[in-house]
Amino acid sequence: MTLRAEILQQPAVLQELLGTQMSAVMRVAAAVHAREIEYVYLAARGTSEHAGIYAQYILGAYNKLPVALAAPSLFTVYERPPQLTRALVVGVSQSGQSPDIVGVITEAQRQGAMTLAVTNDPDSPLARAAAYTLDIRAGVEHSVAATKTYTAELLVFAMLSAALAGDTGRVAELERVPEAARQALELEEQAARAAEHFREMSRCVVLGRGYHFATALEWSLKLKELTYIVADRYSTAEFQHGPIAMIEPGFPVLAVAPSDPGAAAVTALLSHLARERGAQVLALSDDEATLQAATIGLQLPAKVPPWLMPIVSILPAQLFCHHLTIARGIDANTPRGLSKVTLTT
Amino acid sequence: MTLRAEILQQPAVLQELLGTQMSAVMRVAAAVHAREIEYVYLAARGTSEHAGIYAQYILGAYNKLPVALAAPSLFTVYERPPQLTRALVVGVSQSGQSPDIVGVITEAQRQGAMTLAVTNDPDSPLARAAAYTLDIRAGVEHSVAATKTYTAELLVFAMLSAALAGDTGRVAELERVPEAARQALELEEQAARAAEHFREMSRCVVLGRGYHFATALEWSLKLKELTYIVADRYSTAEFQHGPIAMIEPGFPVLAVAPSDPGAAAVTALLSHLARERGAQVLALSDDEATLQAATIGLQLPAKVPPWLMPIVSILPAQLFCHHLTIARGIDANTPRGLSKVTLTT
Repeated sequence: MTLRAEILQQPAVLQELLGTQMSAVMRVAAAVHAREIEYVYLAARGTSEHAGIYAQYILGAYNKLPVALAAPSLFTVYERPPQLTRALVVGVSQSGQSPDIVGVITEAQRQGAMTLAVTNDPDSPLARAAAYTLDIRAGVEHSVAATKTYTAELLVFAMLSAALAGDTGRVAELERVPEAARQALELEEQAARAAEHFREMSRCVVLGRGYHFATALEWSLKLKELTYIVADRYSTAEFQHGPIAMIEPGFPVLAVAPSDPGAAAVTALLSHLARERGAQVLALSDDEATLQAATIGLQLPAKVPPWLMPIVSILPAQLFCHHLTIARGIDANTPRGLSKVTLTT
Repeated sequence: MTLRAEILQQPAVLQELLGTQMSAVMRVAAAVHAREIEYVYLAARGTSEHAGIYAQYILGAYNKLPVALAAPSLFTVYERPPQLTRALVVGVSQSGQSPDIVGVITEAQRQGAMTLAVTNDPDSPLARAAAYTLDIRAGVEHSVAATKTYTAELLVFAMLSAALAGDTGRVAELERVPEAARQALELEEQAARAAEHFREMSRCVVLGRGYHFATALEWSLKLKELTYIVADRYSTAEFQHGPIAMIEPGFPVLAVAPSDPGAAAVTALLSHLARERGAQVLALSDDEATLQAATIGLQLPAKVPPWLMPIVSILPAQLFCHHLTIARGIDANTPRGLSKVTLTT
């Protein structure tokens, strides 16, 4: 199956996940409530780490849980793991194979912490090492560049957050995500035109903040994997503490900037970059003022709550990357130097 | 005072810090022991965040403390902060001014958590908001690009880790750091030659792992602030989960790869990048095999323990960036678009 086919599959994958896995998610939520969990310790790499960063924001905002991203080398290289007794220790991996992520879960299990695997393979070493497993049910992903497994991981964390809070209003919001994803895929033609506009770039920066930071990270990684563009990435706040010095006239800035409590500051920054610094700004947004501030705007579906927008906003970004490979004459299905399963220790 | 003068000041700053602040550090360590601290929650931006990532590794490895890097927007933008009662909540900021970092400490204080400011200004809003303050005593830093305040922040965390463990052997190791820093500055001429070699680069990637990941992040940020080069950065493990696809013949790879339990894998990767992928590799290392694997090697001082090497290894990287500004005709003392204090919310 080609990359584009997997991108287009996402509304169906999300629908299936919602329809089949809510009970499993609720069992994990009940187990969390039965213990004195003080924080979450989350191990992941690459695309799955971006899903972990999404989890950091929503579990913090809606479940009051601080989330620490693991430093796997403490477990595998230095053999000096931290004490995780009061943590919910989560390993996220599409394949469930990477030894460093499995190593974190194995050690946490040894310490007696609550462990959870989020994976596309419930028979993987990661799933076998963890006490609880959530299956993202995305089906086999053939492309090296992850797309449907990413949005499925996001949705599992969104479901877990709603279940932990016992919030039926948020569960109802979840049920509208597959339709919003379908609408986001309708942006393909515009994404292809935007790719044509940016086809010559050799470097760029991708920006987002808060809930949308994960989308910026994931967009940047897709650009590197698929188009070999040096795509830097920052939260809009972090960007202003130094990296903004890189911007010169014509510099490409890709931004994820939907309606959000933080949107005003992001829009002001994009407007500054486009008008005063001469940057070429591509913005994903559902907000008219933000779209106007950009050089090119892609209009995201309306009325998606900010906490769920990351499951929707990455879709046109994936399509943009896919069309950039066509514009640049690259075969998206065989990225150079990569394989589907990376085994780092 | 110029950037170069501040770089050269570092051995004296580190010496002063060790000689005057150990008692203050020990008081903080005693206060941590008096409470049931389960983990550290650390808020910082830019260079100070890199010091926080160093803290993540050494507090994890030597004090069994998991470290979560804060998501400040949860506090300031979304106004949905996580529950931090069992955390040591640390704010790191040279100026102690940035409202988002102060916001995290203020909320943690309100929740009754233990709070600590690490700052170069003990009268700053950050220091006033926190229950405990550690003064990094670096003296006024005039350059926009932080150098001496970075290594001073690293040293404060190294001192805190040794004090928390009550480990006099590690305190003795700390006392050798200023001399190793002096030796590292002797690499200036070689760093200048390396800068000449890489003067035309418009993009690069900076790699490091474990304790040395912070050095890679900080080196990358200095390149952006001072030379406007799009300097991407990854842990060597993370790099293999996708971004390695960017590498093509001639691509510049800067690596921090000293003797370390993880060195063999790093050296193998650098050798692969240089020989099979045609990358131009600049390596900082004290290990002969690693220096040989690189296109250009800068030999770090010998016998610095891995956990302290980050305080030493960043110095030749700073000198490399300084000389790159000269080679590229940039005034390092006035980076475009930046000011010394950045106020993000």
